[in-house]
Amino acid sequence: MNHKLILRTLGRTLQLEALFLLLPLAVALGYREDPLPFLFTILPLAVLGSLLCRIRARSGFYYREGFAVVGMIWVVLSLFGALPFFLSGQFGGYLDCLFEIVSGFTTTGASILTDIECLPRGLLFWRSFSSWLGGIGVVVFLLAFLPKLGDRSQILVHAESPGPISSKLAPRTARSSQILTMVYLALTGTEIAALLLAGMPLYDAAVNTFATVCTGGFSVLNASIAGYGLPVCEVIITVFMVLCSLNLGLFFLLRTRQWKMALQSDELKFFLGMTAGSVVLVFFLLVSGYDSPGHALRDAAFQVTSIVSTTGFSTADFDQWPQLAKLLLVGLMFVGGCAGSTAGGLKCARVLLLVRCAGRSLRRFSNPRSVKVIRLDGAAVEESTLNTVFVFFFLYLLLLAAVTAIVSLDGSSLTTSFTAALACLSNIGPGLDAVGPTENFAALSGLSKGALTFAMLAGRLELFPLLILLRPDTWRKP
Amino acid sequence: MNHKLILRTLGRTLQLEALFLLLPLAVALGYREDPLPFLFTILPLAVLGSLLCRIRARSGFYYREGFAVVGMIWVVLSLFGALPFFLSGQFGGYLDCLFEIVSGFTTTGASILTDIECLPRGLLFWRSFSSWLGGIGVVVFLLAFLPKLGDRSQILVHAESPGPISSKLAPRTARSSQILTMVYLALTGTEIAALLLAGMPLYDAAVNTFATVCTGGFSVLNASIAGYGLPVCEVIITVFMVLCSLNLGLFFLLRTRQWKMALQSDELKFFLGMTAGSVVLVFFLLVSGYDSPGHALRDAAFQVTSIVSTTGFSTADFDQWPQLAKLLLVGLMFVGGCAGSTAGGLKCARVLLLVRCAGRSLRRFSNPRSVKVIRLDGAAVEESTLNTVFVFFFLYLLLLAAVTAIVSLDGSSLTTSFTAALACLSNIGPGLDAVGPTENFAALSGLSKGALTFAMLAGRLELFPLLILLRPDTWRKP
Repeated sequence: MNHKLILRTLGRTLQLEALFLLLPLAVALGYREDPLPFLFTILPLAVLGSLLCRIRARSGFYYREGFAVVGMIWVVLSLFGALPFFLSGQFGGYLDCLFEIVSGFTTTGASILTDIECLPRGLLFWRSFSSWLGGIGVVVFLLAFLPKLGDRSQILVHAESPGPISSKLAPRTARSSQILTMVYLALTGTEIAALLLAGMPLYDAAVNTFATVCTGGFSVLNASIAGYGLPVCEVIITVFMVLCSLNLGLFFLLRTRQWKMALQSDELKFFLGMTAGSVVLVFFLLVSGYDSPGHALRDAAFQVTSIVSTTGFSTADFDQWPQLAKLLLVGLMFVGGCAGSTAGGLKCARVLLLVRCAGRSLRRFSNPRSVKVIRLDGAAVEESTLNTVFVFFFLYLLLLAAVTAIVSLDGSSLTTSFTAALACLSNIGPGLDAVGPTENFAALSGLSKGALTFAMLAGRLELFPLLILLRPDTWRKP
Repeated sequence: MNHKLILRTLGRTLQLEALFLLLPLAVALGYREDPLPFLFTILPLAVLGSLLCRIRARSGFYYREGFAVVGMIWVVLSLFGALPFFLSGQFGGYLDCLFEIVSGFTTTGASILTDIECLPRGLLFWRSFSSWLGGIGVVVFLLAFLPKLGDRSQILVHAESPGPISSKLAPRTARSSQILTMVYLALTGTEIAALLLAGMPLYDAAVNTFATVCTGGFSVLNASIAGYGLPVCEVIITVFMVLCSLNLGLFFLLRTRQWKMALQSDELKFFLGMTAGSVVLVFFLLVSGYDSPGHALRDAAFQVTSIVSTTGFSTADFDQWPQLAKLLLVGLMFVGGCAGSTAGGLKCARVLLLVRCAGRSLRRFSNPRSVKVIRLDGAAVEESTLNTVFVFFFLYLLLLAAVTAIVSLDGSSLTTSFTAALACLSNIGPGLDAVGPTENFAALSGLSKGALTFAMLAGRLELFPLLILLRPDTWRKP
């Protein structure tokens, strides 16, 4: 392990976090709120960051270090990011603050807050802004705006946003990161403008946009998006939740007029088909209980896209929906959005590969001479990649089972424990029953919150960067 | 497809079923009960069977036909096996009768009966006997006692009891089948003798032994094994539930004094470790609520082994246990017993391979130069085998989700729908909540019962033989 380079990279991360915190500080000052929680976080971050950055290290990461350092970046970022909440004294104990900021950075949107509206706007801005930062990924910022970390920085990007198959937008990693950042900023700007036009105040438009484009789902109203009573805004947010579940690279292809290539993506078709089908099914399950079909369709579309994009906003209490509709949402919680998006879950590309592998096995039984290569977007997928996808799927379920078991120690119902674990691991936010869309995570024990915090990080980093931090092997000299 | 040979094989199966039905007929006559339901089943079976057996066919199965014919054997066997129940008029409609006999043949033990004790002994004997037959597998009987089906009969055995890796006990398939049948008969004889010595009447000793050695779990008392109030019998049954979850081949190795080889099985160690660990954990979760630690240990051991062996007997209402204990049981429902046993579930060998694959991937991340071959019992496992294991795991969960969705249409709780589907797919019997150990499946809708019947068959045949019957490809000319 290149310990010195790891420390240096962590130093840069702390500096970056100090920089990011200036924005909520400005909001707090603008609304004449207490700036001290931010100042007392920025100061140690800046000092410690600068000290670590003075460490001289030979450049270059290897695979193992790349994954380990990304895991550590997120842990350190969260440990410090929780400080403003903690210092304000309004978010409960440190573990609750850590849960809330990890929920932000991982774009989960699960909250331990029971009354959101009474809190200072600066702190809520930091909460929403953290999820916006976490959406695109801290490493992308590091690479886009700061000096190069070494010639193998691609490893870091891959560790932070792996997906089953890595594809580059540009030959140089830093350039790819810049493109992604531009797409992200463009989506953010467009949605803020749309929400402003639809009649939402600037502050609300900003924080809700942050929560949408990162597919996080933190809201500044207790009743989530339903609290605004603006159907047009619900439609706008629905559209952006769908857009932000797509591979961000697709927008770049569209901008460079590679329409055909963008629209031929297998994953895109799978995602859109699955989402549309689910909306239609839920609509038919709901429509009889609604005043108008239009309202039923709006609620079905909003809740389905909110779950499949792993955002977690709500405009209806889906915990009261028919069992089959709830089960469908649980199924979508597993799948999540597209690889290369800000969404969580297993990701559509992986599920598509799993389905194709299963189809191949069945075909082999009925016709042993059938074709044996699995393709994605026309290109053959290597068997070792498929193996990694299956291992990911298995580890995902294993971790889900372990976290469910820990949460069940609170004595919560099986549905509560299971959906709490799934909603955190897939970075969604609300689950069902006692952690349903009108509820929150405040009542859970410290142990449960700890386990769910780990699940959120593991889900956002797609397991491996965090899991290998737990292996003693990782820390041994090679 | 060799249609003629398929029909001929089905003919032999019908003849065999007519033969098997003579035993419950004798029991019915012995207790002076109505023999007509049996006679009116045996007669058409014998006639139709003989007609089909007159078809001349070239010998030899190919892979596809082997799997398809095994799927069909089980379907046809069940369709006729339900007749005695239906003709008696005491088991409700034909779908309920079909559910009950499939539950028998697949050694599930889920029941639609609300009052078992009032039913004729002959019918209950057929119910228990069907599960005993299903335990070892109908094909094994076909091969052990009837003329050869062709030179590739190994395919049939593999289709009926696949397991992740096929291992032969003897060079000839027929000889292997005979060995397995002998082991099965020896286990059956020993348990009947033990239960008789412990004070159980002969009829009860026989039917409970049938239900134990096949890991089926049909009981002739409404309160299952708890109804006898004989702690010694509970201990005996616990021991035999463990024994019958082991690879039956192990007993043959022990008899031929290959101790070392038998005890070195990775799967055996995994299964025994998992079972013992679960018993200890459940014991600690339960002990405070019991009058004596001995009673708590007996109940913990009985329920854990009943679930992990996929038997489904009960001596305590585990639906009332602490959440973590229930979750552990649900976890064990997934795993099941060892490959080559009569138990259902994913099977320990598969789970062990999944765990080792996951470990390999994690090792690779922290040390890319680590060893890359997965071994089981010292032998390297091929990557294509691992792929099939992963596909099996994925399809298992997919089928589980589909059946859960169908059952949820009844409006049952998520726990009920999910555990009903899992208990049927893993061939256990009772689940939790409305299908818990003190409940039954009678209240479910026809659609749910149909889906669960399919799940039981799919679980017993390890998915592929049944799933390929649904593929149009299978029925086309090659």
